[in-house]
Amino acid sequence: MIKVGIIGATGYAGAEIARLLYSHPEAEVVWYGSRSYIDDRFASQYGNLFKLIDAKCLDDNMDELSRQADVIFTATPQGLCASLVNEDILSRVKIIDLSADFRLKDVSVYEKWYKIEHKAPEYIKEAVYGLCEINRDKVKSARLVANPGCYTTCSILTAYPLIKEGLIDPDTLIVDALSGVSGAGRGAKVANLYCEVNESAKPYGVANHRHTPEIEEQLSYAAGKEMVINFTPHLVPMNRGILATEYASLVKKDGHLADASDIRKAYEKYYGGEKFIRLLDDNVYPETRWVEGSNYVDIGFKIDERTGRVIMMGAIDNLVKGAAGQAVQNMNIMFGLDESMGLEIVPLFP
Amino acid sequence: MIKVGIIGATGYAGAEIARLLYSHPEAEVVWYGSRSYIDDRFASQYGNLFKLIDAKCLDDNMDELSRQADVIFTATPQGLCASLVNEDILSRVKIIDLSADFRLKDVSVYEKWYKIEHKAPEYIKEAVYGLCEINRDKVKSARLVANPGCYTTCSILTAYPLIKEGLIDPDTLIVDALSGVSGAGRGAKVANLYCEVNESAKPYGVANHRHTPEIEEQLSYAAGKEMVINFTPHLVPMNRGILATEYASLVKKDGHLADASDIRKAYEKYYGGEKFIRLLDDNVYPETRWVEGSNYVDIGFKIDERTGRVIMMGAIDNLVKGAAGQAVQNMNIMFGLDESMGLEIVPLFP
Amino acid sequence: MIKVGIIGATGYAGAEIARLLYSHPEAEVVWYGSRSYIDDRFASQYGNLFKLIDAKCLDDNMDELSRQADVIFTATPQGLCASLVNEDILSRVKIIDLSADFRLKDVSVYEKWYKIEHKAPEYIKEAVYGLCEINRDKVKSARLVANPGCYTTCSILTAYPLIKEGLIDPDTLIVDALSGVSGAGRGAKVANLYCEVNESAKPYGVANHRHTPEIEEQLSYAAGKEMVINFTPHLVPMNRGILATEYASLVKKDGHLADASDIRKAYEKYYGGEKFIRLLDDNVYPETRWVEGSNYVDIGFKIDERTGRVIMMGAIDNLVKGAAGQAVQNMNIMFGLDESMGLEIVPLFP
Amino acid sequence: MIKVGIIGATGYAGAEIARLLYSHPEAEVVWYGSRSYIDDRFASQYGNLFKLIDAKCLDDNMDELSRQADVIFTATPQGLCASLVNEDILSRVKIIDLSADFRLKDVSVYEKWYKIEHKAPEYIKEAVYGLCEINRDKVKSARLVANPGCYTTCSILTAYPLIKEGLIDPDTLIVDALSGVSGAGRGAKVANLYCEVNESAKPYGVANHRHTPEIEEQLSYAAGKEMVINFTPHLVPMNRGILATEYASLVKKDGHLADASDIRKAYEKYYGGEKFIRLLDDNVYPETRWVEGSNYVDIGFKIDERTGRVIMMGAIDNLVKGAAGQAVQNMNIMFGLDESMGLEIVPLFP
Repeated sequence: MIKVGIIGATGYAGAEIARLLYSHPEAEVVWYGSRSYIDDRFASQYGNLFKLIDAKCLDDNMDELSRQADVIFTATPQGLCASLVNEDILSRVKIIDLSADFRLKDVSVYEKWYKIEHKAPEYIKEAVYGLCEINRDKVKSARLVANPGCYTTCSILTAYPLIKEGLIDPDTLIVDALSGVSGAGRGAKVANLYCEVNESAKPYGVANHRHTPEIEEQLSYAAGKEMVINFTPHLVPMNRGILATEYASLVKKDGHLADASDIRKAYEKYYGGEKFIRLLDDNVYPETRWVEGSNYVDIGFKIDERTGRVIMMGAIDNLVKGAAGQAVQNMNIMFGLDESMGLEIVPLFP
Repeated sequence: MIKVGIIGATGYAGAEIARLLYSHPEAEVVWYGSRSYIDDRFASQYGNLFKLIDAKCLDDNMDELSRQADVIFTATPQGLCASLVNEDILSRVKIIDLSADFRLKDVSVYEKWYKIEHKAPEYIKEAVYGLCEINRDKVKSARLVANPGCYTTCSILTAYPLIKEGLIDPDTLIVDALSGVSGAGRGAKVANLYCEVNESAKPYGVANHRHTPEIEEQLSYAAGKEMVINFTPHLVPMNRGILATEYASLVKKDGHLADASDIRKAYEKYYGGEKFIRLLDDNVYPETRWVEGSNYVDIGFKIDERTGRVIMMGAIDNLVKGAAGQAVQNMNIMFGLDESMGLEIVPLFP
Repeated sequence: MIKVGIIGATGYAGAEIARLLYSHPEAEVVWYGSRSYIDDRFASQYGNLFKLIDAKCLDDNMDELSRQADVIFTATPQGLCASLVNEDILSRVKIIDLSADFRLKDVSVYEKWYKIEHKAPEYIKEAVYGLCEINRDKVKSARLVANPGCYTTCSILTAYPLIKEGLIDPDTLIVDALSGVSGAGRGAKVANLYCEVNESAKPYGVANHRHTPEIEEQLSYAAGKEMVINFTPHLVPMNRGILATEYASLVKKDGHLADASDIRKAYEKYYGGEKFIRLLDDNVYPETRWVEGSNYVDIGFKIDERTGRVIMMGAIDNLVKGAAGQAVQNMNIMFGLDESMGLEIVPLFP
Repeated sequence: MIKVGIIGATGYAGAEIARLLYSHPEAEVVWYGSRSYIDDRFASQYGNLFKLIDAKCLDDNMDELSRQADVIFTATPQGLCASLVNEDILSRVKIIDLSADFRLKDVSVYEKWYKIEHKAPEYIKEAVYGLCEINRDKVKSARLVANPGCYTTCSILTAYPLIKEGLIDPDTLIVDALSGVSGAGRGAKVANLYCEVNESAKPYGVANHRHTPEIEEQLSYAAGKEMVINFTPHLVPMNRGILATEYASLVKKDGHLADASDIRKAYEKYYGGEKFIRLLDDNVYPETRWVEGSNYVDIGFKIDERTGRVIMMGAIDNLVKGAAGQAVQNMNIMFGLDESMGLEIVPLFP
């Protein structure tokens, strides 16, 4: 039985880890860390787990926690994990960090986009970017996994095979994405009140959202060259879900623009054996309702012959594949378990 | 492995049975009956099950189905199950009917409230009302189970112990209930369009909703006398969930009005050992979000000393405990399985 | 041109006053008071008024304001208005208070339910309860109007004629009500975040909501005797709207229980000439969508002959008739204008 | 008083015309045409207008209607207006067609995208494309106005000045748009049921939505060359609102890429005097909530210096500026009234 500690357990992502691990046959949570609710029952904040989880919330004493747990999930604001990690702790416990602290390899990029000083740049190199379907092998032996962001997981996976195979022009990639409100976290802010979000749609972080360099870095590895993209997130009134609609110009290969068959082959090459990626049929496009509550990534595409562009579309549940689910998937890989253990959840509809 | 047939598989309740049974270790669906979508893949209607269920929809040939299946769930409009059932079929297969055909013991009451002729009144007596927590023993040996309605499951369970123990005056019971929209089914009606339901709340079926006699009949058994109640359902803009708020005057027992301790004891007496009923702490009231996607019934109460009434409140997921989940629970009981098999689902929040 | 000051202008009710007065031909806002946003443009908080209102937010200097304005709306938390009002101010300006400070005539009831000391009990007697359709004449000459609560406006108006005419037993009245989320205000609280409210329905304030004594007091005047009622509010996921479903036992009059004709006559007697009260046709019930954005109160009813009760139902927009609209209606009455001036708004659907 | 006939009065757009004209000082509706609800009271379908509109629905006898009305709004499916219009009718009455029948100047493009034969191609040339802010002068003298689509109104107005001024490369324009559900109409379809739409976001009509050629044609006039674009609509769970996010590469002018000042100047040049277009401040982006219920178009933009693209964003209420409001605006222009008459509505929030 893997002993798990969660720091930030009463945020939406932390609580989602708790939900998933409750049904996980090989892991048990021994520490629900939540500075805001110390000594409160976890279930007093998450009534869905009433009678199921009896534990009380604890502080985020990483040192003590590292002695009790085999793995720690840090579902906390940027900067916290970097400020707590050290060799002593890493010698005793594995860490899966759901914040952005170890996602970007260039510390100056991190500091520029996040506007905070990085407290543990010495671990950036070691940290493995935990996008399971791409970096599975590296995750296996990692001590420190940087769990990808929600927008980034969806945006990268949707475009990756076409970039890797050279079917699209990397310089033309535009990612337009929609997110449900849980992505904004459980902090008490006017902007996230029901009446502020309901019956409205809005763009935000235009040309400066922090997931931009993360998408760019990972896709640059696939492209074999540095990529700069446009990424525009939008908030729409729903609890869960990310939908990415991505545009890129097709490039000529073997004398012709890539056609639907080429595109499909590329997706199948990389994802054909992936349990959690569902390549949709022709002319079927992803909808967030079909992945709700699950670890699936649904991907579809359409070629527009009039403009020579391909429209790639992906959908995930931001709290599962975009956060807690992928974190558990990484844990499974790190501990040699079946990668899908505890994650074989049928999406909930309606 | 129990072989299951579903008639009405592409309605919300039918599809929820499919979702639940997909993860059930001892049952498999062999027949997805859906007259509207014969030969279409089931997953073309329910994209959440894409790549998980490959089967196509079939017709509702009950005779053939009774030879292939061990149990049939009929998730169909009123009248269909009664028109298809016969001795021949019941000799081969068990039936769990999610319609109202066999819920009411008095056929004249059925015909008055449903305004249709009952086609198989001879099976009404045999049919067991499948409210598991109350009728578990009778369900065990049943061939034909009448699966309770969504409002009724919630309304009955919320008031049952207090009536059974004589703590409230049955003549004063008023049930005011709210429902999510999936309770209205997947039929294409203007009244259930997104824009008609969203941003609105409304009462309907005032003083004549069909679940009224069902609640009355079952609670009358508990009261030991005939009860007549007010039941007012309301539609509110959410996908899932039933919330029942019930009012009744407390009666004197042993020289005093029942107090909170008496009330709690009554609930614990009947539900203390029930896995799927969660009696909430004092001054905590049920919220539908805490049961979403699960088979739980959350129950809370409050005594108003000023008026001498108790307010009882219950919440369920209408598609799970209010339909498909309870149907599977009944199946588990009928086949001697662990009653909670396939139903140990943590509610999904947010 | 009536000069208006708003204290609490950036709350939902305050901003709704601003919206309504923008189109009012005889009033103009000269002071947008908002302690939280002093010196910010009002439209930076309420983008719907961008380019329409150019003013900046000011503090809540009641003394200065009373010299600039003819009437002040206080759309502020309980206690503030009572702490600021004095004879000096009232000699210069009329006050319409949207808080509960002057709604209850018995200061001990106020202090018990609101759990704060009343700072200006000397004005309670003078204050007029501004339920326009009932107290129109008293409002005309008032200096200080206590604008009714949202739940109370809807609950009282729905039952008033039947109680006044003695058609129902006051001791049996139960009010079960639903509210949209804007009723909870614009404060940054976890409980009102989008993801906490969406896809859920919940009761709250069970047996102790502060609108209870307000409903009781006003209906007691109508009944000619002290009434004690049950009032249970519920939060449902929508921006605006209050729906009250009320139950009471019919009483015999002239040898028979009141029938539908008696009930309708009673409503027509009191509301037949009321512009903002719409008595619905038989078997039609109010829905909050039909009053959204408007000052209307829609009322319907149904007699249940089986139980001898009448179910009365009313719907309002909580921010209009339940707050800002009624406040403007009171202003119109106080200043001798056409009562519906600036309020002839067609409800917005969908 | 202008006498108005509405054909298709019980659809969402038709009913929105009714709502707007109810408060219009110089127009009155004399004919509520609705084939589906002949002889039903209009208010039985639109309870918001109960007690306000007493009329019953009539058929769509265009000939008779042309004798009673000064102007006819056809808010009907594609093909109907074209099948009814003729010289006789046009000699008596003006027509504002909310369908696509007369929007595209090239009949073959119409027939290709709409897949129906055009029944009155002889009127295509005469018809004026009623995008008021662009074609005001032509509208003044028109007999037949083709009222623009909802997506197109928003998409065109958001990009128009930058294309007209040559600040962006027309070949790079990508329009990614979100719509509320009322845009799908009031037809009873499973896809538009509450539970199908709620808690989900989806793209649709990818690379083949019918508004594409309409956007292309109008922007081509501005560009002075033929444009081909990508347009991807998405359905998001809200009643009203269109949000368009548009991407294009900046082009060099006078030796440098257009900067924010150039962009703003271009917008101000064309929209500086427009009452219904609100150019937002720097770093403020449109949100559909700020225009709900109103005729406003809110526009914002952001330059991404890293990619050399500008992101243009626009928001409208699809039923007002995207349909009924613009139709009334066209009527005002056609009849020489103040263009904003009856349309000075403050957006409703929350």
